[in-house]
Amino acid sequence: MQNVDTLIVAAQVLPIEPEGVVLTDHAVAISGGKIVALAPAAQALATYSAKSVVRLDRHVLMPGLVNLHCHAAMTLMRGLADDLPLMAWLQDRVWPVEGKHVGDDFVHDGSLIAAAEMLRGGITCVNDMYFFPGATARAMLRAGMRATLGIIAIEFPSAYAADAAGYLAKGLATREAYLGESTLSFCLAPHAPYTVGDETLRKIATLAEELDVPIHMHVHETRDEIAQEVERHKVRPLWRLRGLGLVSPRLIAVHAVHLDDSELDLLAREGASVAHCPASNLKLASGIAPVAAMLARGINVGVGTDGAASNNRLDLFSEMRLASLLAKGASGEARVLDAHATLRMATLGGARALGLDNAIGSLLPGKWADLTAVELSSLETLPCFDAASHIAYVAGREHVSHVWVGGEARVTEGELIGIDVATLKEKALWWKQRIVQA
Amino acid sequence: MQNVDTLIVAAQVLPIEPEGVVLTDHAVAISGGKIVALAPAAQALATYSAKSVVRLDRHVLMPGLVNLHCHAAMTLMRGLADDLPLMAWLQDRVWPVEGKHVGDDFVHDGSLIAAAEMLRGGITCVNDMYFFPGATARAMLRAGMRATLGIIAIEFPSAYAADAAGYLAKGLATREAYLGESTLSFCLAPHAPYTVGDETLRKIATLAEELDVPIHMHVHETRDEIAQEVERHKVRPLWRLRGLGLVSPRLIAVHAVHLDDSELDLLAREGASVAHCPASNLKLASGIAPVAAMLARGINVGVGTDGAASNNRLDLFSEMRLASLLAKGASGEARVLDAHATLRMATLGGARALGLDNAIGSLLPGKWADLTAVELSSLETLPCFDAASHIAYVAGREHVSHVWVGGEARVTEGELIGIDVATLKEKALWWKQRIVQA
Repeated sequence: MQNVDTLIVAAQVLPIEPEGVVLTDHAVAISGGKIVALAPAAQALATYSAKSVVRLDRHVLMPGLVNLHCHAAMTLMRGLADDLPLMAWLQDRVWPVEGKHVGDDFVHDGSLIAAAEMLRGGITCVNDMYFFPGATARAMLRAGMRATLGIIAIEFPSAYAADAAGYLAKGLATREAYLGESTLSFCLAPHAPYTVGDETLRKIATLAEELDVPIHMHVHETRDEIAQEVERHKVRPLWRLRGLGLVSPRLIAVHAVHLDDSELDLLAREGASVAHCPASNLKLASGIAPVAAMLARGINVGVGTDGAASNNRLDLFSEMRLASLLAKGASGEARVLDAHATLRMATLGGARALGLDNAIGSLLPGKWADLTAVELSSLETLPCFDAASHIAYVAGREHVSHVWVGGEARVTEGELIGIDVATLKEKALWWKQRIVQA
Repeated sequence: MQNVDTLIVAAQVLPIEPEGVVLTDHAVAISGGKIVALAPAAQALATYSAKSVVRLDRHVLMPGLVNLHCHAAMTLMRGLADDLPLMAWLQDRVWPVEGKHVGDDFVHDGSLIAAAEMLRGGITCVNDMYFFPGATARAMLRAGMRATLGIIAIEFPSAYAADAAGYLAKGLATREAYLGESTLSFCLAPHAPYTVGDETLRKIATLAEELDVPIHMHVHETRDEIAQEVERHKVRPLWRLRGLGLVSPRLIAVHAVHLDDSELDLLAREGASVAHCPASNLKLASGIAPVAAMLARGINVGVGTDGAASNNRLDLFSEMRLASLLAKGASGEARVLDAHATLRMATLGGARALGLDNAIGSLLPGKWADLTAVELSSLETLPCFDAASHIAYVAGREHVSHVWVGGEARVTEGELIGIDVATLKEKALWWKQRIVQA
């Protein structure tokens, strides 16, 4: 018998790799936070002696979900400004509140609440972009959530930094401070083509190479933004980014709602990824990203919630379902983004965009044991003919029963482990009062 | 003090009428199953002596949701056939299973499971269309759910009836049998233009007048269906229906995905209603109904889940959110279908389509006490700046805590009352085995 830390025995397992597979009565063996084996339950029980055996008799076990685009701290602005287009939402509502309140405490508290919401809903890894990424790093470490933190750059001053050089310097220092943390990684996060100048973008392209990190950037979110940028630069934003050396396998193009054929071809040719945020794109009336066309060209796509101020949930279950349904309805092809492809997008697709596909995103041995279990035993999930279909189209985040990050239990029987939810609720109410009074 | 049966005191109330209002610390007084008053809590507590006082300190109280289009019994086929377009889904998967299994027992069990799912999720009234409507009637009475049952008509034989005349005769007899039930009403339900002939449709137009009931019919769901019908009848289906006398305030045009301007004008002019089923329309790749254009013309729109075989949830919370987001994204107008308008659509809009807007759909005194309470105290619902926004964009059906139909408690503290969930789960599994083995 081989000693392992944990053996999780599940009625059904969706390993994501190999593709399109549903395994029955299988077990995942975990040691040192990593997956040692995925094997039939009987064989695993005969092979491994585990300190802890978790039996999930009515559950589907799968890789933890990867939220490829979030502004976690904005959870404190959940539902603050609805039914507005992007620029009115940003300029009239979000930026003024941020200007008054955003600081280290705000970002820490908002990010911790977001981490709790995400973990409880089966999300084990988030790619975040916000001011004070060091505060988000502390929150993610405290919650035990895997995160890629954006070294944010924007050309206007905030409580965080005075100018783009200041943003970069602070972000790089934060990265240095957390280099030893196995659950944290960093990327460069220039906010958007319309808020970051050429000089800063060139610096970011160079830095991304030097540090070997992704570039996380809002790209082609709205038609208006593209039109304004074309007026200023005489070229569409994505081509400007290409000229500055930013379109490469490192690029995570967030939103990518409005792409013409040449731009789809460019992303495909250069191996860039897209962070698809369907709820936010609809809610701000930005449009519907051409996901079917992206997939047809082989572009890697992950799924993001965006921040809770424009969604208003940090819920990848509703986002997966929406992504799949919307791709079918918008393309007219019911077979597009089927259940398995949708689950892959929200796990391995996100991992690949982050350069973490050798570390997370599927249940291959050697990867971190970032796992989510979904219980399919309540009436609204019955009958079940196919587990993949039920995860994509039926289950909600409320059916998530267990979550592990790097082999550590973060949710057990639906309850968050090591997070004081009552205190977080008080924090949410406290910040709400501040925002309302200001 | 005036004696009443029940007084429900809630932190916030969304009465739907008057429009756009959120009331704080209000109470609903109920007697004989009907709303007696909606008043400030202190005033209500001083005025009414209630046998039972329910205090909802962290909740939003609102009218029960109205599911304007469902095939309840198809819950037994939840997730049986995904990622297929309408005709392949119907002809290759759904109809064969129906041909083998559908009968009185199947419809009763499937409808009871559906009623349990819907009540648990805050839906108090459903407009249903399926074979054996008498079996659905029994299930709805047993569950204590309000329902409008379709007197279904279709030109092909089934276990239920041999031909259209047979369908109508059976449906009319079922209606006679249940005329005394206050929670049941009936409508005529010709399946679709492509499955019902002119003679039957003419008969239905006459019957609808005689019985004073709505006409519930799939209309313009897919482009292919319209093209085929144009070939056969030399006219688009909606205009054919108009010629046969079916386009009137009685018509509930289900789906209505593909409408040109003249057809939108026709529905508006004749006062017909639309049952908008956004998830089903996307999932079957039928398209995106022009809801913004409908609302701009003043067409009454309600929201439907469709059956669980094409959704795969009977969940009006996810459907409301999708309807609102999709209307914004598809129209490019973020202000379209704001939170209040969305809630009104899923309550009063549905009631009006069913001719029940004097009986349900808002919290006006004299209406049935069909109520849903949503608890907004869990972390993922905090902070809350606006209750209407949170019901439309944040809450899920899992946050529904209490439901009343005609003043009778159907859900209390999240638990179904008077429904044996364990038995229903066994039924779901039993039918699954039959379907899989056949």
